[in-house]
Amino acid sequence: MRTLCHDLPAATPGTEVVLEGWVHRRRELARVTFLVLRDRSGLAQVVLPAGRSVPPEETTVRVTGTATATAQAPGGVEVTAATVEALTDDALTPPAELWRPTLDVSLPTLLDHAPVLWRHPAQRAHWELAAASLRGFRGTLDGLGFTEIATPKLVGTATESGSTVFEVDYFGRPAYLAQSPQLYKQQMVGVLERVYEVGPVFRAEPHDTVRHLAEYRSLDVELGFVRDHRDVLAVLREVLAGMVAAVAEREDAVVRAGARLPVVPDEVPVVHFADALALAGAPDDEPDLAPEHERALGAWALAEHGSDFVAVEGYPMAKRPFYTHPWTGAGLEARSARTSTTEGGDERWSNSFDLLFRGLELVTGGQRLHRAADYEAALLARGEDPATHAAYLQAFRHGMPPHGGFAIGLERWVGRLVEAANIREVTPFPRDLHRLAP
Amino acid sequence: MRTLCHDLPAATPGTEVVLEGWVHRRRELARVTFLVLRDRSGLAQVVLPAGRSVPPEETTVRVTGTATATAQAPGGVEVTAATVEALTDDALTPPAELWRPTLDVSLPTLLDHAPVLWRHPAQRAHWELAAASLRGFRGTLDGLGFTEIATPKLVGTATESGSTVFEVDYFGRPAYLAQSPQLYKQQMVGVLERVYEVGPVFRAEPHDTVRHLAEYRSLDVELGFVRDHRDVLAVLREVLAGMVAAVAEREDAVVRAGARLPVVPDEVPVVHFADALALAGAPDDEPDLAPEHERALGAWALAEHGSDFVAVEGYPMAKRPFYTHPWTGAGLEARSARTSTTEGGDERWSNSFDLLFRGLELVTGGQRLHRAADYEAALLARGEDPATHAAYLQAFRHGMPPHGGFAIGLERWVGRLVEAANIREVTPFPRDLHRLAP
Repeated sequence: MRTLCHDLPAATPGTEVVLEGWVHRRRELARVTFLVLRDRSGLAQVVLPAGRSVPPEETTVRVTGTATATAQAPGGVEVTAATVEALTDDALTPPAELWRPTLDVSLPTLLDHAPVLWRHPAQRAHWELAAASLRGFRGTLDGLGFTEIATPKLVGTATESGSTVFEVDYFGRPAYLAQSPQLYKQQMVGVLERVYEVGPVFRAEPHDTVRHLAEYRSLDVELGFVRDHRDVLAVLREVLAGMVAAVAEREDAVVRAGARLPVVPDEVPVVHFADALALAGAPDDEPDLAPEHERALGAWALAEHGSDFVAVEGYPMAKRPFYTHPWTGAGLEARSARTSTTEGGDERWSNSFDLLFRGLELVTGGQRLHRAADYEAALLARGEDPATHAAYLQAFRHGMPPHGGFAIGLERWVGRLVEAANIREVTPFPRDLHRLAP
Repeated sequence: MRTLCHDLPAATPGTEVVLEGWVHRRRELARVTFLVLRDRSGLAQVVLPAGRSVPPEETTVRVTGTATATAQAPGGVEVTAATVEALTDDALTPPAELWRPTLDVSLPTLLDHAPVLWRHPAQRAHWELAAASLRGFRGTLDGLGFTEIATPKLVGTATESGSTVFEVDYFGRPAYLAQSPQLYKQQMVGVLERVYEVGPVFRAEPHDTVRHLAEYRSLDVELGFVRDHRDVLAVLREVLAGMVAAVAEREDAVVRAGARLPVVPDEVPVVHFADALALAGAPDDEPDLAPEHERALGAWALAEHGSDFVAVEGYPMAKRPFYTHPWTGAGLEARSARTSTTEGGDERWSNSFDLLFRGLELVTGGQRLHRAADYEAALLARGEDPATHAAYLQAFRHGMPPHGGFAIGLERWVGRLVEAANIREVTPFPRDLHRLAP
């Protein structure tokens, strides 16, 4: 019967225990040999008589010995009088010493040797926080009456714009990798009303930045019967709180990753796009927020509201996809602290938002159009033929509720949690312009 | 404040309630108009004065009226003196009457009109069972110390065999869609020891059958420190039990879908491949089980063991992928009820298995090789250059435990639960040789 490292402190002193894991570190001293064993649960200290050989670091082993109380061991119990049986041949020396407190390697080294270097407890913790976040995301939405969906990643037409799609040879004809589940999650709102999906999305991003990947995990949400995008933001607030709470439960991984957990305010501060430009010191005719504007807004939210999060609503329609609902400010006016004069029903602005987390765009969302006629007009206005979206438009012709949703980038979320300089530091096998392996 | 249909029976009679949803059915009688409203939670009966118009079926509406106890209504409460506000233009007539108890349409009609026809309560239930299964899958594995992972779907080399991969134009060079997360989940065993992934897999299957799709959801599991594939089967048994339990919690959807839930036996019956051939009446030199053999074995398991599940272990090495661990029968002999003479350490057979559910292959799994030298030999023996798997082999050179895992096809699982004739009946947007839309 195997004992996990983190259960060793609960073993009765004097009893025999069997541990299995990797040789995290071996230290052969004159009178004694120490072995630190690593398994999925943590580390354990093992003591062998001097002269007893231990396989090199990273070899997998089975350790049999006596649980012994000692103040020097982590958790107060170590394994003594141990015998060590190797489960494989001797492991090759890793490209960095995994037992050191920090993994001090360059980014290319980390990425090239991901299967080995991600074993470092601090590095592995990044993904443990990602997994905890997924659990918090789903748990929150399950509690709010959402149903998980899975929509096709192979699609016949480019989802939202043709510029950044990957083309696939699909039985001799072209298909595309879905840039987002947007059009499908909307259709499933017609079926299940409240839906979410966790899945890969694909962007043939031709630029090489610290915050873009060609494949990433999108946490998508869509819900029917909303008044406007503020109802969507309210669900987003619950989801973020649930994700932070689930991450906090993995306290060991939080510590190993050096993550600083944010507080999700009861009301996330919201500023209108026009005001955001002013706050960020950007010209008032800018059509979008540049990274430096996002950083300035993040700093403002922290200084003014003590919040790591700030939502910017009302993005210019011209910069949003065809399914975006125009601004219906009137109903919002009372709820908003905006100071600018963007009165209700303005076609320049939209009922959409971005949510910034520590000065970086993390979430895009908003209210969508829900009338078939509005879709046809929106597509025609952009020079697109509604016939290419015939299957999608079916849903609207057959009755759809006012609805909206959002998408969170999982890797960006973890990257901001641990304040990584590059999103690739928290992505085990990133895909970008240059990288398709490991 | 909106009341959901399934909460209506709890409303205080005489109070005003607001419901939102789709017009599921309207019936205009001489003295009264009935409207059945559908939302994500169920149906509610609404009564309007005669002559009051109700939008056509599938239009989304907001209903305001008085909660009124009546024996005739489902749940004992209906909404009377109601006013109905349409939230969109009149909906187009659906291609089938969604209010009828069964959705009697051809498969092509169902698939072409998926965004509308999946709204039928019995049809929608298929996906609700899929979602419940996912919850049961993850919940069981979280409880067993597994960590969810997400591995790349864009890969530089074909995963297991070159014959059925989709090629992608990846920034001007070829990439492939992952046929399975196999090679990556193994690498992540080196990092996290016990991992699972729910994600799309892609198979350029050139044949058109009732049980294959070009894109489907694979529920992948991989764990380290196993003795052999029987340890993997034991985890699979727990996972299946967890999935059935989670499905059973959605009793309403089980009833709507007409699903017959299986009992997962404490010990799933296991037969050796050689014995399986004999039981199925197949020639003893068959290298694989044909669909009719699977059906025969399913019938045998039900008759002999009262089990909807049967595992076949020891598949011929020649038919399994390069990473398959050969048969180590000795340790298994005592645990197995086999009658044939496949003694320990036989290189013809493998430590792999298929699990059949109601006579259909649902799961493939087994123990994998874990020594770097074994991988090199296995690849060379198949005429493959180990260098093409350099990144993958890194994990083994740097120390991996004995490990194994399995993969469940989500759509097949739901298909067998509801005993669908074609896997496409339970897949909202199937992808195959002929179909790339909706």
